[in-house]
Amino acid sequence: MEITKAVITAAGRSQRALPLQTLVDQDGVTKTALAILIEEALSAGIEEIALVVAPGDREAFKDAAGGHASKLQFLEQTDPRGFGHAVLTARDFTKADPFLLLVGDHLYVSSIPRSCARQLVDVARTYHCAVSAVQPTHESKLPNYGAVGGRLLHGQQGHYDITEVIEKPTPTEAEQRLLVPGLRAGNYLCFFGMHVLTPMVLELLQEDAQSPGTFTLSSALARLAQRERYLAFEARGRRYDIGGRYGLLNAQLALALSGKDQREVLELMVDLLANRQLNRPA
Amino acid sequence: MEITKAVITAAGRSQRALPLQTLVDQDGVTKTALAILIEEALSAGIEEIALVVAPGDREAFKDAAGGHASKLQFLEQTDPRGFGHAVLTARDFTKADPFLLLVGDHLYVSSIPRSCARQLVDVARTYHCAVSAVQPTHESKLPNYGAVGGRLLHGQQGHYDITEVIEKPTPTEAEQRLLVPGLRAGNYLCFFGMHVLTPMVLELLQEDAQSPGTFTLSSALARLAQRERYLAFEARGRRYDIGGRYGLLNAQLALALSGKDQREVLELMVDLLANRQLNRPA
Repeated sequence: MEITKAVITAAGRSQRALPLQTLVDQDGVTKTALAILIEEALSAGIEEIALVVAPGDREAFKDAAGGHASKLQFLEQTDPRGFGHAVLTARDFTKADPFLLLVGDHLYVSSIPRSCARQLVDVARTYHCAVSAVQPTHESKLPNYGAVGGRLLHGQQGHYDITEVIEKPTPTEAEQRLLVPGLRAGNYLCFFGMHVLTPMVLELLQEDAQSPGTFTLSSALARLAQRERYLAFEARGRRYDIGGRYGLLNAQLALALSGKDQREVLELMVDLLANRQLNRPA
Repeated sequence: MEITKAVITAAGRSQRALPLQTLVDQDGVTKTALAILIEEALSAGIEEIALVVAPGDREAFKDAAGGHASKLQFLEQTDPRGFGHAVLTARDFTKADPFLLLVGDHLYVSSIPRSCARQLVDVARTYHCAVSAVQPTHESKLPNYGAVGGRLLHGQQGHYDITEVIEKPTPTEAEQRLLVPGLRAGNYLCFFGMHVLTPMVLELLQEDAQSPGTFTLSSALARLAQRERYLAFEARGRRYDIGGRYGLLNAQLALALSGKDQREVLELMVDLLANRQLNRPA
């Protein structure tokens, strides 16, 4: 299974400005969050990228992509019908091919030399099926994420056969349907914001689009688990939701502390903490 | 001397995107750097604000100003002739009035309850003259700033009569012309990015505009010191240049560590440092 296409969604009302924010990457280069995401995709062997944006945002995103703009196709989500609809917008781009899906409001920091996207795509190539990256997440954070239930893949630590998908489950739902053996108590496998999806997912989303209103990706993924093999994979690394309060700060610190400038940024942190003591109002 | 007008310059080629960046302010509210700067001006009693932008940037800045957009007038700097020219662009707005000048690539964190802009405007009102906020700065950073020389105002700690202004002085120039008694060795009074200026400054800038090419504000301020009383004032607080590498990070940490979320952000820092140890590649 070759995966050469990626879709990045950035049309959500509250998330439109996030990919345009400026950060310093792990190599110490100042660039936009969008450029960092595009490079994440390219690191996984992706050759073509479609960016799903809200109408009117194309120029700003083209600027933000910098030197990568030529690799991008822009798709406008004309109706704000939710994340499922945003993904479906890409169907004329992905056609009959599997594709990497990244969300425009997350950044990823790998804890091994291979990027998170590379790790995920490697799993999809090995098992020839759809795979969602997941991260064990405390139940207090369930209201923010889609979560999956499933069985550990025989002999493969961190790989799961997905049997259930629930968008933003309640703690009770999670406890009844999403318990996964081997995780710490109170933890569930929540989406990491990165998936390899098959054309079947777009067929399922197309079904959802027949009814009026918004629709999630999770609903289609729940049905996918009944139709095809569909795996979850614990990527070695962490996702940073840059849309939350202090999300950009957290992502920037994570990038810097795992990159070439870790010493410089540690000094900056220490300096601020020291000055904070001195400057504190009496 | 009443000061009710402010000018914010944000037309510099490398600085245009900075005021549009998203930060969390000291009250824990997510907003753009521009909104934080506008609130800095408003905290000093400013009623009207002119924003000097590059052609084509008006709409993006209007969006970034959020609820403050109605207080803004937009002025386009049609020729990129430097910072002095950007300030001169505001002459039809400031007319015969003194005004507060803020640069769009700095943020300010006061170490006392009064904001930095408020402290500065209060000095200008007391002494009825132009005042530049300054910060003792190590000579290694002279290439980034304008610097002043002068005499301590009798009995007024942190207040100086300015006799010299040099833009980005060499260490030798600084040592020969800008030594100020009472500062630590190797430190000079560098601009803080915040001034109260008089109509005379615009007359002097108008002279500079007669010659072709770019011109600085510092050159006009150097002549101002020969024509009018012109003070420097060490604001109680710190400026953060958000245009440098990690400048946004530094400003965000400074805001957070001096604001209501200091505990939350300290925990975030500790958590990242702990995970960094655990996640570090073998």
